[in-house]
Amino acid sequence: MKTIDVCLSPELMHLYDVQDKAVVVVDILRATSCMITAFAHEVQSIKPVADLNDCKKMKEFGFITSGERNGEKVEDFDKGNSPFEYMGEDIKGKKIAFTTTNGTQAIEKAKHAQELVIGAFINLSAVAEHLKKSKNSILVLCAGWKGRVNLEDTLFAGALIERMTGDVVPDDDSPIAALHLYQKAKGNMVEFLNESSHVKRLSRLNIYKDIEFCLTADQYKVVPVLKDKDLVLL
Amino acid sequence: MKTIDVCLSPELMHLYDVQDKAVVVVDILRATSCMITAFAHEVQSIKPVADLNDCKKMKEFGFITSGERNGEKVEDFDKGNSPFEYMGEDIKGKKIAFTTTNGTQAIEKAKHAQELVIGAFINLSAVAEHLKKSKNSILVLCAGWKGRVNLEDTLFAGALIERMTGDVVPDDDSPIAALHLYQKAKGNMVEFLNESSHVKRLSRLNIYKDIEFCLTADQYKVVPVLKDKDLVLL
Repeated sequence: MKTIDVCLSPELMHLYDVQDKAVVVVDILRATSCMITAFAHEVQSIKPVADLNDCKKMKEFGFITSGERNGEKVEDFDKGNSPFEYMGEDIKGKKIAFTTTNGTQAIEKAKHAQELVIGAFINLSAVAEHLKKSKNSILVLCAGWKGRVNLEDTLFAGALIERMTGDVVPDDDSPIAALHLYQKAKGNMVEFLNESSHVKRLSRLNIYKDIEFCLTADQYKVVPVLKDKDLVLL
Repeated sequence: MKTIDVCLSPELMHLYDVQDKAVVVVDILRATSCMITAFAHEVQSIKPVADLNDCKKMKEFGFITSGERNGEKVEDFDKGNSPFEYMGEDIKGKKIAFTTTNGTQAIEKAKHAQELVIGAFINLSAVAEHLKKSKNSILVLCAGWKGRVNLEDTLFAGALIERMTGDVVPDDDSPIAALHLYQKAKGNMVEFLNESSHVKRLSRLNIYKDIEFCLTADQYKVVPVLKDKDLVLL
């Protein structure tokens, strides 16, 4: 049977061989949640850019510039890191250049995967259904917070493992831990995460509405994947 | 209030500043469990040695040579990595040179801590009582398995946090995750860990008795600490 493993931080990626794997990159609050929302609202493509200045320059080439550093919008960028900014007609058919503190760095570290998929709670079932059809074993790469492990990305890994029960087996202790945590949290994830350091950090930015949105499963059916250097719809 | 944080893998230690911290190094299966058992049976000191050949050479200087690689005893070493080897009269008053796959590497990475303490379930309450008296905030460093996160060390972190409730506050998402996992596991840790990859790996070596011993809390009251380059009793 195919296996599923979880890399709890991009700083541990050197321990995983991903050339024959489907890697699911997840940054629930909020990079991958934004990206999925944008594809659900018909953006053409998203270029993940690890460096802030490289991202800024993409405006000259007709890109919408998007992203954050430390959870806050970057000066001169068109858009920040709230999914509600990616629901309008203004992004339809457009290209976005996207940089974030953790999410786009995680994508960079997973770019040699056999297949790179963008996941979040808002497209959880769509990702699970896609991966069930794939022949590749799976690694969930949690973006974390500046290299540290965070709860919300770990919970997503657990949720994906639960949805895929019977199709995959956990390959290490991290997926087992993620599944246990999700099973404990799933009754009320907002409450479970209220004690989380990252959620506390973001709450100071008044994004409670974003958090609730990002934790609501299966709002969209889109599955963004990396093709060459861009994220596109499957 | 003092804080408590958890570094889930030695590969994440560069993210933590430990110069003003008490670091508790834990490698439940089985390095720190062996070390604590040895001190409870009156070993004089233990020199943690990261390199296998360096450890072997210590025999010339009168040391007992101990340790493992990949869970198995090393050829020509006096002792392996089962706590039951550290209960006899033969170690009383002696010096041990100790090398293991994960535990001694973790000690090496934490050597600049304000205070370095050796913890395991078998001395859990003694470690908690000692740390309550210390003014330093705490980082639990889980030795893991070859850089990867494992369940048993994470559960120890959760157990320590539970024992210290009221004296410390969790400082990040890792300690919160560890506490949740421990609360789910504590009713029957042996059963909880039966699905763990590391326990499965070790079970192949027929060490069920070791595992049960290493998961039984509060068998000893000794607290080994690093002084210069050696572990000694507090």
